[in-house]
Amino acid sequence: MPHSPLPPMPAFEAGWVWLAGAGPGDPGLLTLLAHHALGEADCIVHDALVDDGVLKLARPGAELIHAGKRGGRPSPGQPDISRRLIELARSGKRVLRLKGGDPFVFGRGGEEALALVAAGVPFRVVPGVTAGIGGLSMAGIPATDRHTNHAITFITGRLAGGDIPDGLDWTALAAPGHALVIYMALARLASIADRLIAAGLASDTPVAVISRATTRHQKVIETTLAHAAVDSRDLEAPAIVAIGAFVRLRAGLDWMGAMEGRILDADPLGTDTSREAV
Amino acid sequence: MPHSPLPPMPAFEAGWVWLAGAGPGDPGLLTLLAHHALGEADCIVHDALVDDGVLKLARPGAELIHAGKRGGRPSPGQPDISRRLIELARSGKRVLRLKGGDPFVFGRGGEEALALVAAGVPFRVVPGVTAGIGGLSMAGIPATDRHTNHAITFITGRLAGGDIPDGLDWTALAAPGHALVIYMALARLASIADRLIAAGLASDTPVAVISRATTRHQKVIETTLAHAAVDSRDLEAPAIVAIGAFVRLRAGLDWMGAMEGRILDADPLGTDTSREAV
Repeated sequence: MPHSPLPPMPAFEAGWVWLAGAGPGDPGLLTLLAHHALGEADCIVHDALVDDGVLKLARPGAELIHAGKRGGRPSPGQPDISRRLIELARSGKRVLRLKGGDPFVFGRGGEEALALVAAGVPFRVVPGVTAGIGGLSMAGIPATDRHTNHAITFITGRLAGGDIPDGLDWTALAAPGHALVIYMALARLASIADRLIAAGLASDTPVAVISRATTRHQKVIETTLAHAAVDSRDLEAPAIVAIGAFVRLRAGLDWMGAMEGRILDADPLGTDTSREAV
Repeated sequence: MPHSPLPPMPAFEAGWVWLAGAGPGDPGLLTLLAHHALGEADCIVHDALVDDGVLKLARPGAELIHAGKRGGRPSPGQPDISRRLIELARSGKRVLRLKGGDPFVFGRGGEEALALVAAGVPFRVVPGVTAGIGGLSMAGIPATDRHTNHAITFITGRLAGGDIPDGLDWTALAAPGHALVIYMALARLASIADRLIAAGLASDTPVAVISRATTRHQKVIETTLAHAAVDSRDLEAPAIVAIGAFVRLRAGLDWMGAMEGRILDADPLGTDTSREAV
């Protein structure tokens, strides 16, 4: 099988921490840099959102350390994880801190990096494909389309304590024409939908809920804001929720569905935008 | 040099179009899937934002077709590009349509895909690292941090005609605690800043302008909303603009700067959040 050459990669030096994103799940969505790091690291400190298919790509002999956080399950606290990273780096290991998606999107990556700064441990950041973009794409929903939205907002659906962030301006989020993607929304979806509807968003606004995006366990439900919580009650976390007219584009762009026989609609918005494009 | 194994990759079949993101510039930020596609494609239809370092990874003999759009320069129109993709696929080629960043983030990817649907050409979407997340990370700015923002909004700074999108609710975007990332903002930065200030955003809101993110030509300017347009007048496109308190985290997280001697501040928000994390 022909393979294109690899670009030059930075050396993974002893005593360094690479804070990297593993992408949403599909190992094919790893970056070349993250893949390189998996092949070089002495130890890999990963969270629960990193797919097994990704961890299989670790160098044989690398130590895999589970430092996951997931709502409801006992797991190491943030200070413990940061301390562990510092200890491993100081012992001369090449430490890969691997997080689901992108390390800086609702992942506490910044806090871990600042702990490294405080400890004088050198680090590199390796961005990853975030589920709110890549998970949507794989489910046939473009993050933006000029016919539906010129902006998109990513929100976390829960804080460390499990609550919805209270500093959010729901009226601003409910502005017409807005496209929203909510991470970790499953447990609080009913409250979130209620707040958006109370803030003025139409209850029939299209919603897609994508569970375990890009993995072979992926499930996608197309629904509306009013019905999203009930319709997604059987879905597994992690899930991302897309809210807005852009969700309607899935009728035309569900390319994975098309592989299994779904007939795609070349004019999913009913505006004949396809004719304009061809 | 040890390398970890590659995960199984889907076959790139003749007559298919893969609509893929090339990431923000650094070839190390290509996904494994996009890299695989570069090694397999018969022809690569790329836009101006795809870095030369990425195109060098194409299979020897692959046909490189420039279909770039960039403000001000003559380039093929969208219908021409879609028509070309359809013709190439129908002639039995394996066609890689490669866009900078992610194909569905302000990239017209959805429109091209719908044109393929209308023509009955099968396609796959390969998400990429978008500059608004990956470019920020490489510049030391986390897209989110729970001490500064529970949401982040991506906006395009210009439409096809060069104008600022007029459907945007600037008051909503200027809501306190909001983090904004504006793509293609350089040419209209003065107007955008004026609108945000008029909508209530403080004129001393921190701003970072990142030109040619993640490439060796990357330049980053730290400024404020009031001074952003003047301070960035010598920067080259493409650039992304980050607006909000989260920009202050760069004082602690500018890891590339640290490699060149910048002293990082473990408490960039002045709130001693680093102690909490360790």
